[in-house]
Amino acid sequence: MVAKLIVLYSNIKDPEKFDEYYKNVHIPLAKKIPGVRKIAVSKVKGVALGKANYYQVVEVYFDDIESLKKASESKEAKEASKDGLALDPNLTILVTEEV
Amino acid sequence: MVAKLIVLYSNIKDPEKFDEYYKNVHIPLAKKIPGVRKIAVSKVKGVALGKANYYQVVEVYFDDIESLKKASESKEAKEASKDGLALDPNLTILVTEEV
Repeated sequence: MVAKLIVLYSNIKDPEKFDEYYKNVHIPLAKKIPGVRKIAVSKVKGVALGKANYYQVVEVYFDDIESLKKASESKEAKEASKDGLALDPNLTILVTEEV
Repeated sequence: MVAKLIVLYSNIKDPEKFDEYYKNVHIPLAKKIPGVRKIAVSKVKGVALGKANYYQVVEVYFDDIESLKKASESKEAKEASKDGLALDPNLTILVTEEV
């Protein structure tokens, strides 16, 4: 079953600057993580229900949970994660598996 | 551009009961929403970074943000949303657009 890291960015102060950096620096770093099959970036346009201040939700796809776990231990993943945290100190990364 | 509702469930007390109801009652309701192209259900297996107590993340795909917005006003969407809230009073639904 497909596994995904779901990455939640919130509280972005300068969206324009963030978007440019994300596209030109962060995505290339994330693409280096071994086993990554696809990266889907979604901008939050509104909150239909509940309370949340997310700016962006990113899904990083792997073939399965084993590939994801193995990839998480790579130096490339640690670098991407460090870069993500510099963008958003409140960064949340969920490890998920599709059912 | 593809648009998605990203639905975040948290604090589920009886996961087995929740999963059964979700699959057999809630998904069929969600599938009735006009314009829904795909529903992807992911179980949260762990939190790699940050703090979050999400149990499940669901993406409901539409062709574009206009279809999503139109669908949100339908009686089918209101029914699915009511049913979701009964499952989780802290339900969060984000309106997103892929970039």
